Amino acid sequence: MPRMKAIILNCTLKKSPEESNTQMLAGEVISNLQERGVECETVRLVDLNIAPGVSSNEGDGDEWPEVRQKILDSDILVFATPTWLGHPSSVAQRALERMDAMLSEQNEAGQMIAYGRVAGFVVTGNEDGAHHIISQLAQGVIDCGFCVPPVAWTYWNMGPGPGPTYPETDHGKEWTKTMASTCAHNLFHVAQALRQRPIPPE
Amino acid sequence: MPRMKAIILNCTLKKSPEESNTQMLAGEVISNLQERGVECETVRLVDLNIAPGVSSNEGDGDEWPEVRQKILDSDILVFATPTWLGHPSSVAQRALERMDAMLSEQNEAGQMIAYGRVAGFVVTGNEDGAHHIISQLAQGVIDCGFCVPPVAWTYWNMGPGPGPTYPETDHGKEWTKTMASTCAHNLFHVAQALRQRPIPPE
Amino acid sequence: MPRMKAIILNCTLKKSPEESNTQMLAGEVISNLQERGVECETVRLVDLNIAPGVSSNEGDGDEWPEVRQKILDSDILVFATPTWLGHPSSVAQRALERMDAMLSEQNEAGQMIAYGRVAGFVVTGNEDGAHHIISQLAQGVIDCGFCVPPVAWTYWNMGPGPGPTYPETDHGKEWTKTMASTCAHNLFHVAQALRQRPIPPE
Amino acid sequence: MPRMKAIILNCTLKKSPEESNTQMLAGEVISNLQERGVECETVRLVDLNIAPGVSSNEGDGDEWPEVRQKILDSDILVFATPTWLGHPSSVAQRALERMDAMLSEQNEAGQMIAYGRVAGFVVTGNEDGAHHIISQLAQGVIDCGFCVPPVAWTYWNMGPGPGPTYPETDHGKEWTKTMASTCAHNLFHVAQALRQRPIPPE
Repeated sequence: MPRMKAIILNCTLKKSPEESNTQMLAGEVISNLQERGVECETVRLVDLNIAPGVSSNEGDGDEWPEVRQKILDSDILVFATPTWLGHPSSVAQRALERMDAMLSEQNEAGQMIAYGRVAGFVVTGNEDGAHHIISQLAQGVIDCGFCVPPVAWTYWNMGPGPGPTYPETDHGKEWTKTMASTCAHNLFHVAQALRQRPIPPE
Repeated sequence: MPRMKAIILNCTLKKSPEESNTQMLAGEVISNLQERGVECETVRLVDLNIAPGVSSNEGDGDEWPEVRQKILDSDILVFATPTWLGHPSSVAQRALERMDAMLSEQNEAGQMIAYGRVAGFVVTGNEDGAHHIISQLAQGVIDCGFCVPPVAWTYWNMGPGPGPTYPETDHGKEWTKTMASTCAHNLFHVAQALRQRPIPPE
Repeated sequence: MPRMKAIILNCTLKKSPEESNTQMLAGEVISNLQERGVECETVRLVDLNIAPGVSSNEGDGDEWPEVRQKILDSDILVFATPTWLGHPSSVAQRALERMDAMLSEQNEAGQMIAYGRVAGFVVTGNEDGAHHIISQLAQGVIDCGFCVPPVAWTYWNMGPGPGPTYPETDHGKEWTKTMASTCAHNLFHVAQALRQRPIPPE
Repeated sequence: MPRMKAIILNCTLKKSPEESNTQMLAGEVISNLQERGVECETVRLVDLNIAPGVSSNEGDGDEWPEVRQKILDSDILVFATPTWLGHPSSVAQRALERMDAMLSEQNEAGQMIAYGRVAGFVVTGNEDGAHHIISQLAQGVIDCGFCVPPVAWTYWNMGPGPGPTYPETDHGKEWTKTMASTCAHNLFHVAQALRQRPIPPE
């Protein structure tokens, strides 16, 4: 069986080379996936030209088609996003909008094209909002044909009000790392289960 | 002008006389309202028989009609709820369902019956979820005819993962109290503005 | 392998014997599950005494323990809820609150007790809100240890504004039934995959 | 008293000159505001370069500063957004992220800079999601210092499943137009009330 692949969509608002707290936290899931032999690739979407729209290719310099192909080449999708106003970032919502096209795209068996893949979530912020963001991303990818394993997420924030950011404190980090390990474990094993016993055509 | 009144709906899941963290945090808003001369009454909904349904009186021992009357006798409504699974409590949603009847009830001017009133929010938990809960309660009461002043909320929680409850730590409390003061200030002054210049019939 | 079981939690606000539109729509998923050999049982929660709280047994006439046992005896959980103010019903949130206890309960392998189970969603209403409700229920059960298969939902409503209820029109029903079939198909096959290849202990 | 001004942020994903259904529905609120003497200006954000970030000026060709100034020059803000995956568009979330800077910006009285302004919402889609989108936008702008009048919204969609778009059917339009009138009426009168009786400094 070929090696399992994961794509991590880092939905930070900060362009490279600025340091991304979201990337730092996603790294916890990534290292846990790598320990299980999963090949991981991160795409920092804000560095690319992801055109507004809901088709798979908006033409004219649109760099979504390459990202879309990486998603389809992967078994595992990890959405990693900061928290702004308690919501997923505009970059995360942009990615979901482009994935909306997957609602009508089909695989060779005539099923939704994303079937057979799992998705998980990483949320960081110094604002409250993680549960809600997970709900939005989970519902979005479930609509698009992904399966979401149990507890397929980790998050970090430190409410209430303004405060230190992820790299500035140790508060809550042990829990966050434990969840990252569980997230990776469950993504890996449900992805394996779907490989070995895929949903057959209706 | 008659004294201003506020009703606080405490939506804790714990019956009296168990201690309610939600009540404790609501107390911060209440004392700030009282300093401005507002008469405050708290209703702990879980102690009452609030029947399931979406009418103003479900009969048969239903204690919602008294609560509804207190809401209509007040200028200010404060929803105070704990966070469970990142959502408003079932008790808070029950109250919203009963307020759904206000969508079609009218005042003497033929307007929605809740017009002229403002609403604010208090959220506590040791789980992340406050922003989302505020969004749900705000949208609910706006639908029902209430006006929501700027920053008409305070919250407390301490992410991520399990941890101390509101009375067990000082973390973040200064911020929470500052927000409670702003919440009360804005509720009071927007309620005053609407008393002096109510929305006229269309 | 023993026959697969599903429990359907009907979260309508209407007590028996009043007709439940939510039950009617849930019936579409149920018949599709039955065609695949799944044994289905519906619990109409509003007919029971489900005490407020977040433990597995709140004592004193609490009827949640029996419901909890049925959930644990099943492979598939279907949450069926009406839409009120755009939110899951208070009865649905009450069930989630009681399931919160599953966060710390373990199976014999030391994993979260709900592991190995899948969940899906049925939403009805004459109000807009289905996507949001699915997001809330999905996040809630994923937190509690359930796996959510792709497109594991169906819904019906007819926006915008007031209008006919589910039994009163044919608008959109073909689509709703197609989704119910897909929902049942995916619940069944992902449940099978998890039976055959469960998530191992970490 | 100077004439009242409104800014409408059209958050469609479609660049000019493509027809925007969101603009069409926003037009219903605009004409109702104009009848009340309000000067209305629409900004189609997707035609501008709104940089990712959470400051008021991200430099380097960023066109947000002009939009921000128009918001501050207005009494009324109308967020108009399509529905994608049941969420506000990425363009709407981008605008909220840039408004996040207003959390710490102050007016001459030392209050949050947006105080004294009201906000309303227009949501279109052939997908379910309006109530949720209104909840997200309302909470976002309330955080940022805006006041939200009762029923300050209108929406149109036609669930469930795929179907005609706003210009292609008359279904539900009478209701949508009635709500647009109420939305404009309430925005106008609460804005007037806040002009005449602004929230004083704490």
